[in-house]
Amino acid sequence: MPDTAMLQRLRETLGEAGVLTDPERLAPYLVDHRDLVRGKAPAVLRPSSVAQVQAIMRLAAEYRVGIVPQAGNTSYCAGATPDASGGQFVLSLERLDKVRAVDPLDAAISVDSGVILQRAQEAAAAAGLYLPLSLGSEGSCRIGGVIGTNAGGLSVLRYGMTRDLVLGLEVVLADGTLVSDMKKLRKNNTGYDIRQNFIGAEGTLGVVTGAVLKLIPVPHRRATAWVELTAGAPLPEMLALVRRESSDLVSSFEFITARSLALVSGADGRLKSGSGGVILVELSSSSQHLPIEELLEGVMGEVVEAGWAEDVIIAQTEAQRADMWRIRETIPEGEKHFGGSVKHDISVPLGRTVDFLAAGGAAVAAYDPALELSVYGHVGDGNLHYNVLVPPGEDRLAFTDRIGRELAPALYDIAIGMGGTFSAEHGVGRLKRGLLQHYADPGRYRVLRGIKGLFDPHGVMNPGAMVDPAEGLIAD
Amino acid sequence: MPDTAMLQRLRETLGEAGVLTDPERLAPYLVDHRDLVRGKAPAVLRPSSVAQVQAIMRLAAEYRVGIVPQAGNTSYCAGATPDASGGQFVLSLERLDKVRAVDPLDAAISVDSGVILQRAQEAAAAAGLYLPLSLGSEGSCRIGGVIGTNAGGLSVLRYGMTRDLVLGLEVVLADGTLVSDMKKLRKNNTGYDIRQNFIGAEGTLGVVTGAVLKLIPVPHRRATAWVELTAGAPLPEMLALVRRESSDLVSSFEFITARSLALVSGADGRLKSGSGGVILVELSSSSQHLPIEELLEGVMGEVVEAGWAEDVIIAQTEAQRADMWRIRETIPEGEKHFGGSVKHDISVPLGRTVDFLAAGGAAVAAYDPALELSVYGHVGDGNLHYNVLVPPGEDRLAFTDRIGRELAPALYDIAIGMGGTFSAEHGVGRLKRGLLQHYADPGRYRVLRGIKGLFDPHGVMNPGAMVDPAEGLIAD
Repeated sequence: MPDTAMLQRLRETLGEAGVLTDPERLAPYLVDHRDLVRGKAPAVLRPSSVAQVQAIMRLAAEYRVGIVPQAGNTSYCAGATPDASGGQFVLSLERLDKVRAVDPLDAAISVDSGVILQRAQEAAAAAGLYLPLSLGSEGSCRIGGVIGTNAGGLSVLRYGMTRDLVLGLEVVLADGTLVSDMKKLRKNNTGYDIRQNFIGAEGTLGVVTGAVLKLIPVPHRRATAWVELTAGAPLPEMLALVRRESSDLVSSFEFITARSLALVSGADGRLKSGSGGVILVELSSSSQHLPIEELLEGVMGEVVEAGWAEDVIIAQTEAQRADMWRIRETIPEGEKHFGGSVKHDISVPLGRTVDFLAAGGAAVAAYDPALELSVYGHVGDGNLHYNVLVPPGEDRLAFTDRIGRELAPALYDIAIGMGGTFSAEHGVGRLKRGLLQHYADPGRYRVLRGIKGLFDPHGVMNPGAMVDPAEGLIAD
Repeated sequence: MPDTAMLQRLRETLGEAGVLTDPERLAPYLVDHRDLVRGKAPAVLRPSSVAQVQAIMRLAAEYRVGIVPQAGNTSYCAGATPDASGGQFVLSLERLDKVRAVDPLDAAISVDSGVILQRAQEAAAAAGLYLPLSLGSEGSCRIGGVIGTNAGGLSVLRYGMTRDLVLGLEVVLADGTLVSDMKKLRKNNTGYDIRQNFIGAEGTLGVVTGAVLKLIPVPHRRATAWVELTAGAPLPEMLALVRRESSDLVSSFEFITARSLALVSGADGRLKSGSGGVILVELSSSSQHLPIEELLEGVMGEVVEAGWAEDVIIAQTEAQRADMWRIRETIPEGEKHFGGSVKHDISVPLGRTVDFLAAGGAAVAAYDPALELSVYGHVGDGNLHYNVLVPPGEDRLAFTDRIGRELAPALYDIAIGMGGTFSAEHGVGRLKRGLLQHYADPGRYRVLRGIKGLFDPHGVMNPGAMVDPAEGLIAD
């Protein structure tokens, strides 16, 4: 239990607005986005400056209490939810919400880590540039969480993961030390790239307080196709062709199965599934000299010629394009409306997606032929959202638990056996700690624990997430 | 001095071919690429398997002797040269030279770290794909060194640094532990991205023995322009325009000053400098449906219209294109022929390149107006090779030393003041250790030393390069 003296000192440092203790105000901070994990906390701390974050970490070090950094609280792995002991504080980044600078010629934006992704997107747009990070939760997730989970999303194929977009980083360590590496450089080979340790670390190594992100020219010219696949269309070969013949101007290559499509209420009847599902392809360009529609037509001509499509619909209007994307983007909502789903955030090498669909489908059928799958996702990145729908009438939490114990291991084994992973973009958090320990290469797992031990020897940084610290790495 | 018993055990482990001690055969391993640093070693170790690398590191840990990993020995910062004590072994990667696999549908190549870059390029090409790493030294540098220095080169603008191309990594730690993280995944959020610590670490944290690298569709359609710049042409604005209007299909945006151009013997007389120097622009594409020449013409039309070019020559034949590139690529040779140069591998934010050229030029003139500069480089990445020519008659080493002491600090101060760096792509090695300590953010420098201490507490991994280990990072 935290010392009341500590709480008193926190109040002095952060002011009344910086320390929430009222149970009603605490509640939303203590449950994860998917309502799977509920925790307790003596208070939610809301620093309004980097210096206040440093002060919090110095107190946490002194009193040896856990600090759970929380940004937009949209983790899919309960990465930002305190445990049930009531001894861990939540550190909310929401008041660190300034866009520090947008530099058009440097093609960079500097932000506090509490800035909501959509606000950063808007600030970039106001300067005539584009922040190529696009997530379903962009209206509520915050940059600190985006960085902490190395978020993926809808633009990874073209622009990479969050890691690929971070130029600079500012971090407060477990003892309150400020590490400033906020340069806007494309090239800077001056020692270990320590930024990378914090990206995707889910706040277990330090608190990210600021970041510089890469911007790009606005890809405002888009050409979008809805491809109704033939049965057995070879997705890896199709991806290779689309990448090559679009000269990697393909920014989305999204897979939608017929079952996932059917979950979307009010889907445009003209946009139907092929026997093999659907691929939503989008090319985008920032140039007025590049005929993007003709390019898409050329690429799609080859797809049809290869016999991979039953039909291809190329969006002729912005409204039609928006319809296609609405379908893709409302699948998670459709699943929720159906009664929920158990999510498996699988990724395999690009060449193995079809193999995984076959083997995964067989494993699910073997477990229970009545189960229904909703499979869709960023197949252009080798990433499938492989979700099992909660059967009508079953309790969502109990079903989630059962599938996690009885079916998921088989699916993960298949993915790992293909050189894949059990978490492509959602992270580890509290829900996948055991999977990490089970599947990680032993040498790599030792390094993970060693790094945690270096940055957080006393276990105050988001304890319970990812891994526990180990003392040292190399024997004496 | 290493124990003779250790040498004996190394011979037993590696065989006679694996332990070179003949002074004549040792010599080339003991001097750096630029002939600035000469070291000594009791032997050069040439393991032919990963298990042998592990055995070497176990022995090094036991006897507490330094191991200096060396790949192609092309470091510009003496990152792979042992010290003069005669107590450090060179570990050459040259016999770890197998291309393990090329997977076209996964768009990935797996290699031993001793593979020469050009061989990896050729293996990718044989599979119909392209490895977008292009360096002046590609015929002799090896993948382990490319990764150890996070090499940049000629394609960074489009495809990123080496870091951006590494999918998987295999590393032997200081105690012989094997860490295998050789996945080919685009997305894998399962714990800290420990690969990143070894990329750019110059062998100071472990020995990289294998890697998986990203491949892309072959950009075999190229369109190239030689832009003779007007005086004062704003390079950042021009870069922004070229990026936008080429939709980032620009793969090179290289700056050449008139003085650098004049160093190249036999330069095509038609390819001359404008008042403001030259920009070599290349667009490239893998698509047969994309009219790349028309795209370049459209972009160049805007450059001319903006008043930034005195003339633009678009290569009409492959031979003309090769001429343009030969000029750019033989500048280092031209400098050598002139009598050598003192190199400053500067980078600044994209928007500050012209500012740096002005301020840097003033600083050089203030120091000695007779000095001549050869300035060229990857200005599309904010990276300038800012080189001072060795005046005829002066001793190269003495001049290098004097400039390093008397002029370089002013240049680096200017770059750092603009948010830039003293090492864009060459690294730190042994030559820039002092600069790293001087310029690094104090918090960041503490983390650098802490990481070194975690992976190499006994200082056996390339001791003398980068930083020295510190014990711990977070106070008790």
